[in-house]
Amino acid sequence: MTDERAQVLEVARRGREAAKQIRQLTRNEKDAALFAIADALDANCAQIVHANDSDVARAREAGTAAGLIDRLTLNTERVAAIAEALREVAALPDPVGEVVRGYTLPNGLQIRQVRVPMGVVGMIYEARPNVTVDAAGLCLKSGNVALLRGSSSAAATNAALVEIMREAIAARGISADAIQLVPGMTHDSTHHLMTARGLVDVLVPRGGAALIQNVVENSTVPVIETGVGNCHVYVDKDADFAKAVQIVINSKVQRPSVCNAAETLLVHKDIADAFLPLVAAALHDCGVTLHADERATALTAPTGIPVEPVTDEDWAIEYMSLDLATGVVDSVDEAIAHIQRWSTGHTEAIVTDSQSAAAAFIAGVDSAAVMVNASTRFTDGGEFGFGAEIGISTQKLHARGPMGLAELTTTTYIVTGDGHVRG
Amino acid sequence: MTDERAQVLEVARRGREAAKQIRQLTRNEKDAALFAIADALDANCAQIVHANDSDVARAREAGTAAGLIDRLTLNTERVAAIAEALREVAALPDPVGEVVRGYTLPNGLQIRQVRVPMGVVGMIYEARPNVTVDAAGLCLKSGNVALLRGSSSAAATNAALVEIMREAIAARGISADAIQLVPGMTHDSTHHLMTARGLVDVLVPRGGAALIQNVVENSTVPVIETGVGNCHVYVDKDADFAKAVQIVINSKVQRPSVCNAAETLLVHKDIADAFLPLVAAALHDCGVTLHADERATALTAPTGIPVEPVTDEDWAIEYMSLDLATGVVDSVDEAIAHIQRWSTGHTEAIVTDSQSAAAAFIAGVDSAAVMVNASTRFTDGGEFGFGAEIGISTQKLHARGPMGLAELTTTTYIVTGDGHVRG
Repeated sequence: MTDERAQVLEVARRGREAAKQIRQLTRNEKDAALFAIADALDANCAQIVHANDSDVARAREAGTAAGLIDRLTLNTERVAAIAEALREVAALPDPVGEVVRGYTLPNGLQIRQVRVPMGVVGMIYEARPNVTVDAAGLCLKSGNVALLRGSSSAAATNAALVEIMREAIAARGISADAIQLVPGMTHDSTHHLMTARGLVDVLVPRGGAALIQNVVENSTVPVIETGVGNCHVYVDKDADFAKAVQIVINSKVQRPSVCNAAETLLVHKDIADAFLPLVAAALHDCGVTLHADERATALTAPTGIPVEPVTDEDWAIEYMSLDLATGVVDSVDEAIAHIQRWSTGHTEAIVTDSQSAAAAFIAGVDSAAVMVNASTRFTDGGEFGFGAEIGISTQKLHARGPMGLAELTTTTYIVTGDGHVRG
Repeated sequence: MTDERAQVLEVARRGREAAKQIRQLTRNEKDAALFAIADALDANCAQIVHANDSDVARAREAGTAAGLIDRLTLNTERVAAIAEALREVAALPDPVGEVVRGYTLPNGLQIRQVRVPMGVVGMIYEARPNVTVDAAGLCLKSGNVALLRGSSSAAATNAALVEIMREAIAARGISADAIQLVPGMTHDSTHHLMTARGLVDVLVPRGGAALIQNVVENSTVPVIETGVGNCHVYVDKDADFAKAVQIVINSKVQRPSVCNAAETLLVHKDIADAFLPLVAAALHDCGVTLHADERATALTAPTGIPVEPVTDEDWAIEYMSLDLATGVVDSVDEAIAHIQRWSTGHTEAIVTDSQSAAAAFIAGVDSAAVMVNASTRFTDGGEFGFGAEIGISTQKLHARGPMGLAELTTTTYIVTGDGHVRG
């Protein structure tokens, strides 16, 4: 075994040991620890920003793009916001101990299915240092140990944040090993974490498609895949045009860099000649470039708005920019077939006043969320009222869609008898 | 790509296509199809038994053990029982369409989290041909396509069963590709199924530890691990001796070859001198061999019952036989520590009249089921009232413990607005 593998496994082993304590903490103990961490982050803000300065300087020297540097950067306001988010997590209900179902069998055996912590949760993520604290806080609240594998570009910041969090919980009698950085900054160290089956209970990768693909393909630890979103808006022949334009604009433009933004607009042929020029003009005003199929190109031509020809790559891609693929379909079934072919299973929206079209769309697409007359941007833990979000799952196993604290738990069946044996 | 890989992927692709129809079947359509399959199995019983005869003859020639041949063998009564089990599945509620939660956001958006089928389910299993029909029936009832990879030893039987099932559903207008055998009988064909990510939604391996380990380590498709059970019974100092003896005997003896049978008995030191001779005699009467630690050996010596010295291998093993490891512990905490070290996370039982000991045990062990004053043998879908069981999950993700029809579903969030956009 390499030294690095031994180090990663040692971290996981210490996490497994700490999990025995963490899973039994009461809500009061966990909330007090979250407040203590928040206070410690506020108190040590200068130290955090100082550490972050060195990461940012390194990134600048390496010629990192401005957008990435912005994600990496912490200042006093951002540290305060990170601390405040922990206090909001403390205010959320404790998922641990919730009785999911409970009943008594005919023989008198009492069965309760109760939420319990997962145990040891591994987070693999990219440059945003706020994820380091968010993930640690959500894991602690749900009774889990957090093993954090952030980006090497944020190494100094993450080290400072984790050291402050560990001291804050240790001062309250909680094992510091409940929050640990995964050592090593090579590709190998991620691999060691992904193969620590038996020591790590679940991995949650958060980041770009390449990172998630790597974890999904190489992990022997169970993974919750979070998502790339190739989201669609379908405007049906029975759509209200004003609502449809609003929903398309909001889905595409409000925050194009996130996974619940729309990437493709499909329009029913019966209304395409009237609707497409309208929405094309509105999108153009917002700076959106349309990538249109032949029919959509012909119908928008009279507006004089330039469009690009759409390719299969356009149908497949998550643009993360002010680009939108668009096409005309003959029916709701054709819209469904297009979505079944190209979607990543994140969010699809239909705009229609027709009950039957909405029902067909809901039954036909197979995604984490289906919006009826609402923007794709609503697929979000905060918007759904979960209060905090681990990520948005695009897999079908365990969790699908926005994940709150409950998704960081599993369950145990507690069966109580009085000497019951099987006949 | 090899021919075999191409064949397996083609089966998966046809399954994916069929899933579009199967997920939308109503309960009436699915139940009628289950009855039609059951009737077809009854009507073609002679053909099935004939095919099975050739598998059994082959197994005999190969010198297969009697127990395995018994598992493999079908006769008229067994075929009738398999058909009857399908009719019982038809009588169960449809999990699809269940609203798991539903609420209205402050902005008026209506959110419903609804159960939907997984899609394409791969089953990898060993010699029992009844699994072929059970799995197909449970998948159909839950709106899923079943890709069945049975044992080569049951190849003729499985081919006959699947052909009959496919004809029965096709006659009702349901795509025959909803039930398919995975072609190829080499190790490679299993591997192709395990790596058909994107075409197969979930894999459920059922069988021995080696089969499950292979799937867990090599699959890129999400897996539900079903379980090896190293189950423990801990008899506390506050146990009722009569109940404790009954529970130990039932847990070990009633059916030693299954995963919810007990493999280890731990006894509190304060009662060990009185209880161990009692339980040792009762176990001896049932033909159980004890593998005892030093203290337990000394305490059972006066009974004259011979015991084997216990080894680490004994603590770790799932005997599947009339053997039981046993040891004396100083406290409930020592019992918990032993279980944390050796358990496979299936089922642990405590026998005690003490509220605090029971609470400590429940909080301290981390298994799919915890029994308080009841036999470990109750961890079972049928006993829990689920009506049918896919298997017993020993993993924490998605499903833990006995899995019913609901565990073969995922959920979709259906969000209904009236032109809602994010501010």
